[in-house]
Amino acid sequence: MRKRDLLTPIGITFGFIMIMLAILSNGGREGVITFVDVASFLIVIGGLIGSLFINFKLEQIKLVGKVIRESFRKNEERIPELIALFIRLSEQARREGLLALENELADVDDEFIKKGILLAIDGIEPEVINEIMNAEIAAMEDRHYKGRNIIEKAGEYAPAWGMIGTLIGLVLMLNNLDDPSSLGPNMAVALLTTLYGAVLANLVFLPMASKLENKTNEDIFVKQIIIEGIIGVQSGQNPRILEEKLSAFLHSDDSPEASDQVVAKEEIHET
Amino acid sequence: MRKRDLLTPIGITFGFIMIMLAILSNGGREGVITFVDVASFLIVIGGLIGSLFINFKLEQIKLVGKVIRESFRKNEERIPELIALFIRLSEQARREGLLALENELADVDDEFIKKGILLAIDGIEPEVINEIMNAEIAAMEDRHYKGRNIIEKAGEYAPAWGMIGTLIGLVLMLNNLDDPSSLGPNMAVALLTTLYGAVLANLVFLPMASKLENKTNEDIFVKQIIIEGIIGVQSGQNPRILEEKLSAFLHSDDSPEASDQVVAKEEIHET
Amino acid sequence: MRKRDLLTPIGITFGFIMIMLAILSNGGREGVITFVDVASFLIVIGGLIGSLFINFKLEQIKLVGKVIRESFRKNEERIPELIALFIRLSEQARREGLLALENELADVDDEFIKKGILLAIDGIEPEVINEIMNAEIAAMEDRHYKGRNIIEKAGEYAPAWGMIGTLIGLVLMLNNLDDPSSLGPNMAVALLTTLYGAVLANLVFLPMASKLENKTNEDIFVKQIIIEGIIGVQSGQNPRILEEKLSAFLHSDDSPEASDQVVAKEEIHET
Amino acid sequence: MRKRDLLTPIGITFGFIMIMLAILSNGGREGVITFVDVASFLIVIGGLIGSLFINFKLEQIKLVGKVIRESFRKNEERIPELIALFIRLSEQARREGLLALENELADVDDEFIKKGILLAIDGIEPEVINEIMNAEIAAMEDRHYKGRNIIEKAGEYAPAWGMIGTLIGLVLMLNNLDDPSSLGPNMAVALLTTLYGAVLANLVFLPMASKLENKTNEDIFVKQIIIEGIIGVQSGQNPRILEEKLSAFLHSDDSPEASDQVVAKEEIHET
Amino acid sequence: MRKRDLLTPIGITFGFIMIMLAILSNGGREGVITFVDVASFLIVIGGLIGSLFINFKLEQIKLVGKVIRESFRKNEERIPELIALFIRLSEQARREGLLALENELADVDDEFIKKGILLAIDGIEPEVINEIMNAEIAAMEDRHYKGRNIIEKAGEYAPAWGMIGTLIGLVLMLNNLDDPSSLGPNMAVALLTTLYGAVLANLVFLPMASKLENKTNEDIFVKQIIIEGIIGVQSGQNPRILEEKLSAFLHSDDSPEASDQVVAKEEIHET
Repeated sequence: MRKRDLLTPIGITFGFIMIMLAILSNGGREGVITFVDVASFLIVIGGLIGSLFINFKLEQIKLVGKVIRESFRKNEERIPELIALFIRLSEQARREGLLALENELADVDDEFIKKGILLAIDGIEPEVINEIMNAEIAAMEDRHYKGRNIIEKAGEYAPAWGMIGTLIGLVLMLNNLDDPSSLGPNMAVALLTTLYGAVLANLVFLPMASKLENKTNEDIFVKQIIIEGIIGVQSGQNPRILEEKLSAFLHSDDSPEASDQVVAKEEIHET
Repeated sequence: MRKRDLLTPIGITFGFIMIMLAILSNGGREGVITFVDVASFLIVIGGLIGSLFINFKLEQIKLVGKVIRESFRKNEERIPELIALFIRLSEQARREGLLALENELADVDDEFIKKGILLAIDGIEPEVINEIMNAEIAAMEDRHYKGRNIIEKAGEYAPAWGMIGTLIGLVLMLNNLDDPSSLGPNMAVALLTTLYGAVLANLVFLPMASKLENKTNEDIFVKQIIIEGIIGVQSGQNPRILEEKLSAFLHSDDSPEASDQVVAKEEIHET
Repeated sequence: MRKRDLLTPIGITFGFIMIMLAILSNGGREGVITFVDVASFLIVIGGLIGSLFINFKLEQIKLVGKVIRESFRKNEERIPELIALFIRLSEQARREGLLALENELADVDDEFIKKGILLAIDGIEPEVINEIMNAEIAAMEDRHYKGRNIIEKAGEYAPAWGMIGTLIGLVLMLNNLDDPSSLGPNMAVALLTTLYGAVLANLVFLPMASKLENKTNEDIFVKQIIIEGIIGVQSGQNPRILEEKLSAFLHSDDSPEASDQVVAKEEIHET
Repeated sequence: MRKRDLLTPIGITFGFIMIMLAILSNGGREGVITFVDVASFLIVIGGLIGSLFINFKLEQIKLVGKVIRESFRKNEERIPELIALFIRLSEQARREGLLALENELADVDDEFIKKGILLAIDGIEPEVINEIMNAEIAAMEDRHYKGRNIIEKAGEYAPAWGMIGTLIGLVLMLNNLDDPSSLGPNMAVALLTTLYGAVLANLVFLPMASKLENKTNEDIFVKQIIIEGIIGVQSGQNPRILEEKLSAFLHSDDSPEASDQVVAKEEIHET
Repeated sequence: MRKRDLLTPIGITFGFIMIMLAILSNGGREGVITFVDVASFLIVIGGLIGSLFINFKLEQIKLVGKVIRESFRKNEERIPELIALFIRLSEQARREGLLALENELADVDDEFIKKGILLAIDGIEPEVINEIMNAEIAAMEDRHYKGRNIIEKAGEYAPAWGMIGTLIGLVLMLNNLDDPSSLGPNMAVALLTTLYGAVLANLVFLPMASKLENKTNEDIFVKQIIIEGIIGVQSGQNPRILEEKLSAFLHSDDSPEASDQVVAKEEIHET
């Protein structure tokens, strides 16, 4: 349903291409093989998983796949349509009464808006609607946080395990200084885990967690506009004021949409 | 009573297996012995304990065993049952009055719910009930924090003592450069405390403290639903609205439970 | 329209001159060439871009040019004019009524003030005006934050990619210890990425993000004075009290302007 | 008057014993002397004092002795007695009026409680009492913070001065590479300041500041219970509800005291 | 007018003496010259200035001199006199009316108090006085923050530029390994910038910024007492209660002043 966010795979690919370029330009083609060390990779990933297992409970860890997929998806931009919808609903409710909104429900496919309209039709007081719908937002925020937090913690534990791996490599190397020729390569292998940890954290986990946080903030923002709209519709607010209120969320000085208002100014005198 | 949280021991075991693999793959079986150094371990653990003794008071330090055991236990998932319970209580209270809830008390084995119902039956005003029960939540949060804080601080002091140990080792080594062959092994021993500190912090203390924090948040969340439920029941709120309110805590767009509502929609017209 | 902020280009130039001086004084003219390494630069910039692509969505990344240009512009200092304007509007509104303000609108070229005056003339209640205008401020703050956040994150990822580049260089170097004469130059190249990352973060991204934050705070401050002014004008507040209120934002003990008040003190007795 | 908190000296001693053990086990008895370097110690302590002199004003620095002594003292646990006291006062006030509490004042030796009771007897309104007593809490918190802050800052500056000392040592050493045999010992001396800084911060200042913060939080907690109690007594609240309120601060699910309530349940019906 | 704060110059001098001692004790008199390197100093200071130019606008940077001078001045301790003043004003206002306070104005030389009294005499409502005077506090806080922030940022950029200088030195050195005898001195010079950055940050900028923050907090504290006093005087509050309120800011359990109250207790019965 929702569009893929191509920037996430592009960003990861781009990052790895840069790493490849850095290796090729300095070490040539045979240098690449130096950077592949399954054991080093396993200790960073494995240790990281161990820390996450202790840190979270099974229900949360099961979310990881869903959370990662989510960071490859895009939120739809739909605030202007939302504002138009609520202005339409507001006008209709003022003309034909709140019950008339029941016919509109079929066209709305957002569960959150639907629920709000149903509560409004049922005559629940605005404060209770506000309370119920904000509780849903809070629950959504908490759920998203729980998923995102795993990625955030992975971004914290990855460099730590990289360092642990390097320390293990250094200790082994220092106990085996007899063969000077193996010193360099051993040290190189020891540094690989630090490299893996830094790349995992800075190219994968931290940007991904940050994108998920941005997306959650957008979702909250949209849902708050919806609550404002529902309550405006229910309380029979003047459509122009409602539009002013809702579009204030959208822009201030730098947006041209502010001027072409859907509801003309004179309507205010009907109030 | 509560189920064990197997993920904590699995995570710790998993982490240590990764460390073993890293050692075995690079250093072979004889490498393992290099990583066991009782003196190094003692300085990290001992110094850490010294710092914790200064940081906390005896009553708090005594909690440590209980706190560690707690991180091996699981919170039960019981929000759906809670919602069902409060809807049942709400219906009964509306039919037979608040005093009728006294009979239900025998079936409730959660002390917090019991206390709330007793306060409601006693006719204490909702604001006072809210105040008393929130004070209990705050006290619980504070108590959990005090226990968890020891683990958190251990996660801060462990790497610091690892570094102190390494500095001691380096100073000793640098004063004894006469025998070049002992240089490597001495440096290796010096690095061991840093390794121990990093593993203790990142595989044990920090994830454990983070899990305990997550569990406390869950406990608070459940207790807040209970308060909302008790007050809804006492104020004779319509069961359907109460259900809407309580289930808002649980889910928003992505949960199927939202649709199969226990109390049918028409009940609202009874109000 | 707005004046250029010369300090930003001066600061960047100044920083680079210092770096050049440091190189020239220690390494002479031939040292400069050592510090130019396109591959090293590409990995830091490229990796950074990769991380930013994952971290943000396309709409936000498109803002980057605008955001960078913004950091080369200056906010105009206009609080004293604003205070004078609102005192004038306030006096006029008290003499001739709110509708008379419509004539003043032509002289006002700030969209935010214009909107506020229009809302006041339309007779919208003060709380609603406050709500609508604060929502605009919040939306502006959020929009500025979204742009600035890209620069802030660039300042975080730059040193990380510098370190990744250095680790890659070190691993390659350690695998190639056969030729001792190449050891130094290879290590030097490896360190260059760390240098690039540090300079980008500390001379470009972090100060720029900080300046943008300062500018947003100034914008918010000015807009809050405007809201205070609009509401004071609409509610027919005494011009002297309004002036006291607005100029309180400006100064306290150390500003001489506090004493030469535009509206004389006796006017207060008209109230 | 207050009991000594033996854990602070035990912790410090314990930490130093661990350090001694680490030195003895690796470097033998002659190793110990290596770790004593008066000049290194002076630079860390002296530099630290210099930074603190700039950071604080004389009045605050004079508090340092008192603050350090405070970290060797224990707060008394007295919440249960407090609850019993307020229930007793509450019953007496309901029976004999607020003025009768004057006789009780002689038995109370806590200045804060005394002041509260006096204010209550004087008939000051509850909100004003609340305001005055909370201002005292805020003033106490601020005063404790000012003292603790010196220790916290010492914990920040100590490692910084350790690093400054090491840098000085390294620069001197690098300028004197002619005698290779002195290289190791010189480097060792250079590292000593880092070691001193790390030990001072992690074994002394940081845990001490953290303990002082914990103690302040306990003091605030107790004083808030006192305010709640004074206001409950003055407003003639039912002793059982007062007890419920006050003991909510103390425990929730895991404390047996919750069940053996001092005031029997039937008393509630008197209200 | 205000007294000099000798601790700031003493602290800086003390810190530099410690550094000299450290150099002299390890490197003798000829070691001192090693630590003076104008180019190294220029890159740290120059780079730092470059970053600050980008970070701030000209108006703010011009404040730097004033801000630094401010950190060499002391706030006067005047809370007890303030309390005495407001009690006197309060008694006079209750006896002779608010207008009588106009005669007192000549004796008051604090602009903030003067303004408050004038507003009170003018009959402005307490909420408006509160609003205006708090806006002045907020403006003062903001102005102080803007000045202090430059010092704080200097404390952040100084170590970063120290590291940039060291990286430049290392890169140059590594490209010039031919002459082993110059290796040490070159490395020493490279480390100097890190040393300069660390000293500037930890001995100058960070403690200075922290002292300025402490002073701002004291100013805010005093001004809040003044507001409380002005409003108490205007609303004709009983002098004893006013004294209780104001002195609550000052002390709680550990101050003897609490007992020798200026206004005797019996006065309360006048109310």
